[in-house]
Amino acid sequence: MAKTGRRPGPTETRAHILAAARAQFGAHGYDGATIRGIAGEAGVNPSLVHHFFGSKDQVFAAALDFPVDPGALVATILAGPRAQVGERLLRMFLALWGAPEPSKAFLALIRSVSTNEQAADLLRQFLERAVLGRVTEALGVPRLRATALAAHLVGLAMVRYVVRVEPLASAPDEELIAVVAPVLQHYLEG
Amino acid sequence: MAKTGRRPGPTETRAHILAAARAQFGAHGYDGATIRGIAGEAGVNPSLVHHFFGSKDQVFAAALDFPVDPGALVATILAGPRAQVGERLLRMFLALWGAPEPSKAFLALIRSVSTNEQAADLLRQFLERAVLGRVTEALGVPRLRATALAAHLVGLAMVRYVVRVEPLASAPDEELIAVVAPVLQHYLEG
Repeated sequence: MAKTGRRPGPTETRAHILAAARAQFGAHGYDGATIRGIAGEAGVNPSLVHHFFGSKDQVFAAALDFPVDPGALVATILAGPRAQVGERLLRMFLALWGAPEPSKAFLALIRSVSTNEQAADLLRQFLERAVLGRVTEALGVPRLRATALAAHLVGLAMVRYVVRVEPLASAPDEELIAVVAPVLQHYLEG
Repeated sequence: MAKTGRRPGPTETRAHILAAARAQFGAHGYDGATIRGIAGEAGVNPSLVHHFFGSKDQVFAAALDFPVDPGALVATILAGPRAQVGERLLRMFLALWGAPEPSKAFLALIRSVSTNEQAADLLRQFLERAVLGRVTEALGVPRLRATALAAHLVGLAMVRYVVRVEPLASAPDEELIAVVAPVLQHYLEG
């Protein structure tokens, strides 16, 4: 095919930056990678990376196909009474898993971290730095409790959506919330 | 190599029965498969299947490389005060994941159910029929609570041993038990 010489459109540029981000995060880890390094690898100006994605956390979430923006997660947690954080977290989690696109991304993430050490390593860094760091800071919850809570959510996903064990797989959201939300809240109350 | 014509030894017979069991469980599901059918596929007498493995549950656990015998699980649960079932379950779980062979088997199981629909389906049937059925019967706990408890254990495994998020990954068993056992117990108390 003839080379057209046209400039890449925004969709291509975005995909190009994401590929560069995956390479940079893979090579340097979450802490070592920089917006500047990602922009360099993609051959674009760093301001373009900011324009498309925002912060490093957000580039990372997009590169990992992580279905939640850590900023939105923290906003959800803080948007209401402290005594209902567990319930709000669980509702957000069930809504994401109930929606076609995020649930596909979560499934892909579970598959890749279960079978690929590097993917597990990147997800670990992301959860430790971007998600749990922010959540524990916002709520003043000990880190071990916050990771235990996260572990419970991960396990719910495995049992409800991946292995689909009954009655957890088919229980209506409200029934599940009644049983599980108090447990999540317990982790936050200490 | 010359054909020796010798009869297969016990190790080979055992492996042969397991292969037949995987084929029969795969083709007929947990409920449909029978010791007789497995013996037929393996070309051995059904009593030999009983001799090597015991019950259908136990053949299934071995075929799936499930690291816990459901009978031993129930025995552990019942071997002590009801108020400490959560702690006993968690201790057993941590001991299994802390031992080289069972932990490898658990990891392989998580990988196969995350990526393989049929493996997920078999594990689901096994958990529903053989494990949760017995545990809920032994304890009189509603099934939804028992599956939520199981989900929490699965999530702990994912976060502590697969993704290895800190501080959950390195927390000493006793510290983890202090935080998590009361939550498991809560699911059992209702």
